[in-house]
Amino acid sequence: MSENCIFCGIVAGDIPSTRVAETDGAIAFMDINPATTGHLLVIPRTHSTDLREASADDLTAATLLAQSLVGRVIERLDADGANLLSCIGAAAWQSVFHTHLHVIPRYQDDPLQLPWHPTPGDLEQINATAAKLM
Amino acid sequence: MSENCIFCGIVAGDIPSTRVAETDGAIAFMDINPATTGHLLVIPRTHSTDLREASADDLTAATLLAQSLVGRVIERLDADGANLLSCIGAAAWQSVFHTHLHVIPRYQDDPLQLPWHPTPGDLEQINATAAKLM
Repeated sequence: MSENCIFCGIVAGDIPSTRVAETDGAIAFMDINPATTGHLLVIPRTHSTDLREASADDLTAATLLAQSLVGRVIERLDADGANLLSCIGAAAWQSVFHTHLHVIPRYQDDPLQLPWHPTPGDLEQINATAAKLM
Repeated sequence: MSENCIFCGIVAGDIPSTRVAETDGAIAFMDINPATTGHLLVIPRTHSTDLREASADDLTAATLLAQSLVGRVIERLDADGANLLSCIGAAAWQSVFHTHLHVIPRYQDDPLQLPWHPTPGDLEQINATAAKLM
């Protein structure tokens, strides 16, 4: 656990999040600034600054959990696809320095462009979507 | 191996590519339509349509090779960061239906936006970059 790391706080439960899945090595929770409906973050429980620094076990745990959630958003949210994205370094749009994978559900003709400009989503809607993914 | 799959052809060596790294489970080669200098594709040797369909072993092999290449582009190309991206489904910008991970080197203030509009890069330049990554 790293001091002052928001995601370590979420792993510990000290910072609230809507968790939709977890394994021994990783957890998945709703992004509160969703790029599309159902946008999730998957993180290893153990702190590392970015994907480059993650141990093979931690990266594998996060990737396999993300893979299962890609299936879940397509099945349960009627998404037409998904993007898996990781940002390594500020130049690559990383803003929280704890390794994370974005799972971004995609919908036919959605207007997503990256970078998106994070703005808070409607929490009630986010939680309703989370309920479908749990 | 899947008939008519370009990436299976690249794995088999029937279709030319500039390969920069490989492991038992995965290979990495230069994207000939680079979004930024040093853009790489990492694919499992075994065919699957997209990340959702890849076996855990294949996905892990591709992810760990991609992780090592993220380090390599930052060290050897003086990149300031990188994005790891996978596109699952046409709605998510997938255009070749063999599981692949993009490793996109990022440079301070580069103009990258996604989706990028693939256009062929200069092959001589791509090969010179590849040589730094081998």
